[in-house]
Amino acid sequence: MGTEVLKRIKNKILGIEAEHMMAIEGLTKIAVIGGGSWATAIVKILTEQSHVQIRWWLRNKADIQHIRQFHHNPSYLSDVHLPPKKIKVYEQVAEALKGSHFVILAVPAAFIRDSLAGLQARHFHGKVIVSAIKGMIPQENLLVTDWMAATYGVPLEQTCVIAGPCHAEEVALEKQSFLTIASTNLSTAASFAKYMTCRFVAARPLGDLYGVEYAAVMKNIVAMACGITHGLGYGDNFQAVLVANAMQEIGRFVSTLDPRERELTSSAYLGDLLVTSYSQFSRNRLFGNMIGRGYSVKAAQLEMKMIAEGYYATRSIMELNKAYAVSLPITQAVHAILYADQSPAAVMEDLKNHLA
Amino acid sequence: MGTEVLKRIKNKILGIEAEHMMAIEGLTKIAVIGGGSWATAIVKILTEQSHVQIRWWLRNKADIQHIRQFHHNPSYLSDVHLPPKKIKVYEQVAEALKGSHFVILAVPAAFIRDSLAGLQARHFHGKVIVSAIKGMIPQENLLVTDWMAATYGVPLEQTCVIAGPCHAEEVALEKQSFLTIASTNLSTAASFAKYMTCRFVAARPLGDLYGVEYAAVMKNIVAMACGITHGLGYGDNFQAVLVANAMQEIGRFVSTLDPRERELTSSAYLGDLLVTSYSQFSRNRLFGNMIGRGYSVKAAQLEMKMIAEGYYATRSIMELNKAYAVSLPITQAVHAILYADQSPAAVMEDLKNHLA
Repeated sequence: MGTEVLKRIKNKILGIEAEHMMAIEGLTKIAVIGGGSWATAIVKILTEQSHVQIRWWLRNKADIQHIRQFHHNPSYLSDVHLPPKKIKVYEQVAEALKGSHFVILAVPAAFIRDSLAGLQARHFHGKVIVSAIKGMIPQENLLVTDWMAATYGVPLEQTCVIAGPCHAEEVALEKQSFLTIASTNLSTAASFAKYMTCRFVAARPLGDLYGVEYAAVMKNIVAMACGITHGLGYGDNFQAVLVANAMQEIGRFVSTLDPRERELTSSAYLGDLLVTSYSQFSRNRLFGNMIGRGYSVKAAQLEMKMIAEGYYATRSIMELNKAYAVSLPITQAVHAILYADQSPAAVMEDLKNHLA
Repeated sequence: MGTEVLKRIKNKILGIEAEHMMAIEGLTKIAVIGGGSWATAIVKILTEQSHVQIRWWLRNKADIQHIRQFHHNPSYLSDVHLPPKKIKVYEQVAEALKGSHFVILAVPAAFIRDSLAGLQARHFHGKVIVSAIKGMIPQENLLVTDWMAATYGVPLEQTCVIAGPCHAEEVALEKQSFLTIASTNLSTAASFAKYMTCRFVAARPLGDLYGVEYAAVMKNIVAMACGITHGLGYGDNFQAVLVANAMQEIGRFVSTLDPRERELTSSAYLGDLLVTSYSQFSRNRLFGNMIGRGYSVKAAQLEMKMIAEGYYATRSIMELNKAYAVSLPITQAVHAILYADQSPAAVMEDLKNHLA
C-alpha cells in the first residue's frame, strides 16, 4: 500500500474517532476566545448549527453582562442575536475551554498571550486548536499555530486556521460568504469546516496551513498599502497593479518558506487578498488611508478603535524575511512608512518603479 | 548561436529599421480611430509625446467641429485639452490613415466594420495596427487582431493590443496608470509601448498577444457578473470569490486556446481583471448591476449611453467555446441571464455551487 493510501485510512480512522467521541456527548462543545467582530461573526455561524454548544470567553466584563442579559454583543456586530440556549459566556478562559472539542482563538495576535494567561498544556490537550487570528505573535514573529505548538505542545496536526475571503460585517448581514479552513492535516480541517458551513457560509478544507496562514497575515499589509496610496490620491488603475503585484509578492514569500504546488488564484489566497484590499470594511485599509492622508501612526491608532493587525504584521514579516531575503517591495514600502518615518508620498513614488 | 539570440538580433534590426524610418520624417504619425472615452484617453497620452502627430478620426461630425473649434471632446472626458498643434481631426478615416506609422483602433468591436468601411488592404500596408478594443467581432467571434489579419492581410506580427489595467477616466485625471502592450512580436510591442509611456503612464511590452487579448475580452464578462451579483445584494465576500474564480476561468480558457507559460497574477491579466471588476468607472459592471436590480437587457441598454462590450463578448466566448468545451461557469451564468432570459437570482444561486 502506498503512503498516500495509508494516510487516507489513518485520517479516516482519526475522523471516525473524533466523530464518535462527540456523538457520545451528543453535543460538540466549541470554545471561542475573544469578543471582537470576527469572534462575534464566528459565534453567529456556530449558532446556526444544531448540536453545538458555544463556550464563549470575552475579556470585557460589561460586554459579558450585556450578552447574558440582552443576548447581543454591545461592542461589535450588535445586531447579531446571540441565543442563550446555544451560548454560554465565561469570565474565565479556563472555564470556557473545559470539555470543549474545539478552541477557536479570535483575539488580535498582540493580545493572545494575555488572553491565555494562566493556561497550561493540559488545558489544550486533546482539543483541536483553531486560529482565527490573521496576525503573528509580536517579537517572536511566529504564526499563531506554530506558537501554540511551541508554547502548549499542541501537535501541529491538531491545529487549523480560518481564513477568508470573509468580512465579519457581511456574515452579520447573512451575505453569502466563503471560508477556507486550512491545516497540515486535511481531515482536521474537514472536521472543523463542517461547523463553519451554514445557510450563508460555505467553508472548504485545504491542506496548506502555512500558505494560507502567511497569506492571511500578509494581505493585511497589502490592504494598508492600498489605503496609503488611496489616501495619497492614487486611483483604481494603480491599486489594480498594486494588488496584482502583492499577490506575486505573497506567492514568492510563501513558496520560499514552504515550497509546494499552490493555485495562487484560488479563493484561499487571491480571494482573501481581494476582500481585504477592496472592501469598505477593512480596518487595515482604513488605517493606511489615514496614513496616506497625513495622519501620524500614533494619531491613526488613537483615532481607530480596532487594532490594525497589518501594523504588527509588517514588522514581523520584515524581521522574518531577514533569514530569507525574498524580494518584498510592497511590505518594505509599508515598513518604511510605518516604522522608519519616511514620507508616504516619496515611498510610493519609488515603489512605482518596482511594480511590474 | 541559439535561436533566442538570433531572434533578439532580428528584433533589434527590425526595431532599428522602424526607428530609422520615423526619424527621416522627424515625426511619428499615429492614427486614432474612434471618438469615445478610451480613444480620447489614448489621444491625451499621445499629446504628452514630442515628435508625434496624432491623426484622429471620429464618427460624430458635431464632435469633430467642437474639437477643431474648442479643443475639447464634448462627448467624452470633456476636461481633456486637445492641443491643435499635435492633433489633426479627420472626417474620412482614409485621410487619418494616410502616412501614419501606427493605426490605433478604438471603437467598440460591434462598430469596427462600419468604421473601416471602404478601406482596403493597401490602406494598412506597412503600418503597425494597434487594437485598443476589448471585444470580439460579433458573428465571426474573432479577436480584432485576427480579424484585421483575415480582412486586410495585416501580418499578425505587425499588430498589437493595448490592455489595462487602465480606466480612461483616470488617465484624464492624470492618475498614475499602467498599460500592457502585447504582440506576438515583442519588438512590435516595444516600438509602440514607448508612445504610450508618459509622465503618468507606464506601458510595458509583453509577448503574449492572445493571452492578453482574450483576458481583456473576458474580464468584461466578469465585470458584468460582479455587477449582477452586486445588484442582487451579494456583498464583498462573494465578489472576492467570484473574481478569484474568474481569474481561474480566464486562465483555463486562454491556456486551452494558446498554451504557454503565463504568470496569471501579473498586471496584464489579474490587474486588468481587477480594475474592471472593482472600479466605479466600469460600464460593464454598471450594466450588470442594472440587470441584477431587475432591469431587462433592453432597458439597461437604453439607459446606458455607452456600449457594454461584455454583452457581445459573452455570446462570442460561448460560441467559440463550443469547439473547446472549457469549463466556464461564470461566462455561462452571464450568458443564461443575458441571452436565455433566466432569472439572475436563480442563476447566481446555482453558480454558488460551482465556485471553489
